[in-house]
This record gives sequence, structure tokens and C-alpha cells, in this order.
Amino acid sequence: MGRVTERRKVIRIRDGAVSTRPDTLVAEEPLEIRLNGKPLAITMRTPGDDFALAAGFLVSEGVLGGADELQNIVYCAGATVDGSNSYNVVDVRTAPGVVLPDITLERNVYTTSSCGLCGKASLDAVRTTARWTIDDTPPVRLEPELLASLPDRLRAAQRVFDRTGGLHAAALFSPEGELLDVREDVGRHNAVDKLVGRALQSGSLPLSRTVLLVSGRASFELAQKAVMAGIPVLAAVSAPSSLAVDLATETGLTLIGFLRGPSMNVYAGEHRIALRAAAAQG
Amino acid sequence: MGRVTERRKVIRIRDGAVSTRPDTLVAEEPLEIRLNGKPLAITMRTPGDDFALAAGFLVSEGVLGGADELQNIVYCAGATVDGSNSYNVVDVRTAPGVVLPDITLERNVYTTSSCGLCGKASLDAVRTTARWTIDDTPPVRLEPELLASLPDRLRAAQRVFDRTGGLHAAALFSPEGELLDVREDVGRHNAVDKLVGRALQSGSLPLSRTVLLVSGRASFELAQKAVMAGIPVLAAVSAPSSLAVDLATETGLTLIGFLRGPSMNVYAGEHRIALRAAAAQG
Repeated sequence: MGRVTERRKVIRIRDGAVSTRPDTLVAEEPLEIRLNGKPLAITMRTPGDDFALAAGFLVSEGVLGGADELQNIVYCAGATVDGSNSYNVVDVRTAPGVVLPDITLERNVYTTSSCGLCGKASLDAVRTTARWTIDDTPPVRLEPELLASLPDRLRAAQRVFDRTGGLHAAALFSPEGELLDVREDVGRHNAVDKLVGRALQSGSLPLSRTVLLVSGRASFELAQKAVMAGIPVLAAVSAPSSLAVDLATETGLTLIGFLRGPSMNVYAGEHRIALRAAAAQG
Repeated sequence: MGRVTERRKVIRIRDGAVSTRPDTLVAEEPLEIRLNGKPLAITMRTPGDDFALAAGFLVSEGVLGGADELQNIVYCAGATVDGSNSYNVVDVRTAPGVVLPDITLERNVYTTSSCGLCGKASLDAVRTTARWTIDDTPPVRLEPELLASLPDRLRAAQRVFDRTGGLHAAALFSPEGELLDVREDVGRHNAVDKLVGRALQSGSLPLSRTVLLVSGRASFELAQKAVMAGIPVLAAVSAPSSLAVDLATETGLTLIGFLRGPSMNVYAGEHRIALRAAAAQG
């Protein structure tokens, strides 16, 4: 790796005092994801876990549903003009017999809907491309106190953030609050793709007994990635968008926002939160 | 408009007490941007300023450089299955005679580089597609005290954030600290595109005597948008990435990060910051 952070000179101004020193920044580089040799998408990401990022992205897009559908992932040699390897182009080969969904290349980033565009069409696109419904039987049941403890545990597990302040983090927890995995990236969506891709590689999709915690806001895109991976609970430290809530309501995803200390908002899927116990303590 | 925010039911948990109430969320809907009738990109955005968003996106991509190159922008009628207008598809028509750069549709989102991919290629892509170099003669000169005052003024000007907590903001200031424009969106890049698009529409590109302030981090993409609009100073409340610093260094963009109260870090283009005055006061 070695490229997760980079050093640059910085001029610091603190209450009028000026000093020059080296500073640690989060590394950002483009990654091109190819599917069976064909360019599919480019994302600006923090190098590292690139194969997992590519695999997770393809889970989100409905292309991959399990490790058996994946033949291999390789860095493309000779991707630069001089024939050297930039380690910024990966090619994902699907296993023989895997039928690829119709991904319209011009529109591959946020949605694969092909009709007139609206939030409803985006919700439909997730439903039609999802490989499974969220199915946690018996339902995951979470105490608010346990949820409240997760952001601190995410921060404790973040390795690079403290040095750069520039990384988003995403973590998977068990319903008992055990930290299963944590990934960091300059892009929040990449951090989630890396988590999901590693789950695919280890054969643990769908992630039907996990809680996904993200360090910032809950956009439609992040809710989509949770649903596509079969994750039943998405918790965000900050606000959700309207379309993220709509998707959660439609798919049965539990969506929690503003998870800060003992406070949180539950926007959908409240059957997974032990509300009565909480009320009794109120 | 009326779609900048939407209401949803939320269950609030505060120290164990549970209550149900309506909550105001930031609206998120997809927007498809077409160029001369051809689908180019889809972005998840907060509705409003859609024409400005499309125009600004095309400035960032090097397609548009001035209002004279724009014929018109329209919402596509009949974009949905039933023929109704979702107001989520806009078509940008360029003026006769405008030569379009070679935008590879499969890769249109973050870069138009066509060779092997690396940070350097991303920097090259900005240089080759930029319509002008950053040219503020005599250079914009900013006192640290003035810069320090901008985040509070941005927050004071944010209309929707207080209600939803879910919006990113971007603002343009004059070198004297006058707030020229502020836009909000669920996506930070959209907020900047809206600012730049409005500048194009009003004939004020390049924005060679302005400071762009963004509410979060400074990624490569945001630095790219500043450079493509001819903006000489980009200030961010949070951290920059390595590639954003590299782009700023190469293009002469002044890049400020961690702008918080009287503290800030200057990563590039320090000739526009009145450092000696600051030191004298230290």
C-alpha cells in the first residue's frame, strides 16, 4: 500500500502565528473499474483494498451477488502510455455463465433506470436489481444504548482519520455490537463498497445480521448500497435525505440518523429498535 | 420549487425518551443532464437551480466557457413513461458553431483522461480542458482575519441547513469578504456547480476575483471545479486530499483547509495570503 496518506508542505496559521511544516494528507487517486475488460466506471478513491472496492461496487450495481460469480480481479498491466502499471485500473472477470444485467454505461454511476427519471424510478431500479430482499429472521433487535456506543467505537477503530481529518469511515457491527470490519476512504461510498466487497470475497453476502455505520450523512446512494448487500440496519452520524428514507421504508431497511451520544432519530424500520425498553428508562 | 425539503415521520430517541413527530429532510432526486439531446450524466441532487447545475457541470467538464456558447436549457417534456414531466431531465443546447470536446461518455463523471489512469493523468485532463488559466492581476490578497470570518458568514447565509442538517453549502465571496452567492445541495459538488452555472448565466466567468468556500472537505473534484471556473482561491472548512493539493500547486490555485476560527492551513498559492501581516500580529 503505502499510499493511504501522503506528505505535503503546509503553512499553518494559528491566531496570527505562521509556521511551515510537513502535513499528512489523505491520498486520492482515480480508480477505473473494468468489467470483463470493458470500462465501466471511474471513482476517485484512497488507494488500498482496490479489489474489494471494485467487487463491492459491482454488488451495489447488481452485477455480483456472491464469490462464486467472481472469476478473478486483476490490476491491468500496461495501462499507462509507457506500459507501466499505475495500479489504478482493475479488471473484474465474472465466472463463466454469469448473466450480466443491462448496465447502461452512460448512466452507470447512480442508477440504472432507463425511463424518465425521478426518485420513484431510482427506488424501482434498486428493487429490480437487488439480488435478495432484506431477510433477518428473527429480526435483528437493537437496544438504543448499544447503537449509541457505536460511533465512539468507530472513531477508536479509525486508523488514518486522526492523522489527516480527511477520511470518511464505514464500519460493520454485529447486532451484539461487535466490530466486524472498518474501512476508510476519501469517498464515503468507496468506504462502503470496500466493506461490501470484502464480505463478498469472504463469502458472507448477504450481510443479513449486521449494522452498517457511516461517519457522515445517509444519502440515497448509501442506503442503496446497504440494501443491495442485504444489510438490515444503516446508521449515520448525520442527516439522511428524503430519498434515502423512502428507499428504507420501501425495502424494510432500518434507517437511523443523527446518531450522537444517547440521541438518535429512527426514520424507518423501527421494529428492529427496542423502543419500549428505551421508553421505560426515559 | 417547494422540493428543497420534504417532511417525513421520525421517531426521536433522547436519553431513553421516545417521541414521534414530523421531521424536515433535505430533498434528494436524480437529475439527468443531456447535452444536445444526448444523455451525459446523472447526479443525485437537491431540486432547484437545475439549469444552473447543468450549466456549471458543463463548465467543470470544459464544454462551456461563457453564456454565448449556450443556446438554451430546457426540461425535457415527456421524459416519464406516462409522458408527464418529472422536472428531473434537462437538455443543454450549445450555440451553433460550438465545438464540443471529446467527452468519453463511459467516463464522464470525474475525468476525461483517456490514457492509463493516475493522479497525474487527472491533473493533465484539467490542464488540457481548462478554458483559461487562473489570472487575477494584480493577485487577490487576503488577510487571514478576513478568511477566518467567512465560515460564520456562510452558516448565517445557509437557509435550509438549520432545518435539515443534511445540506452541503458553497459560497462565493469577493476579496473584500462580500458574500456574492451561496448555494446548498445534498451533494457538495452540485452546490459548486450551481454557483458556477449561475455565474455563467450572468456572464461573469471566469470568476477571477472570487473566493470559493465549501462547507466540508476539499477533494480533487472540488479543486477541479474551482480551476475550471477560473476561481483563484478555494477554502474548505475541513481537510484537503493529496490530489487536490497537487492540482492547486500545478495551476496556481490558493488552497486553504481546516478554516476554523482564527486557524487555517494554507496548502498552495500562499502568495495570495497576507502572511507577514499575520505574523506581525502573532
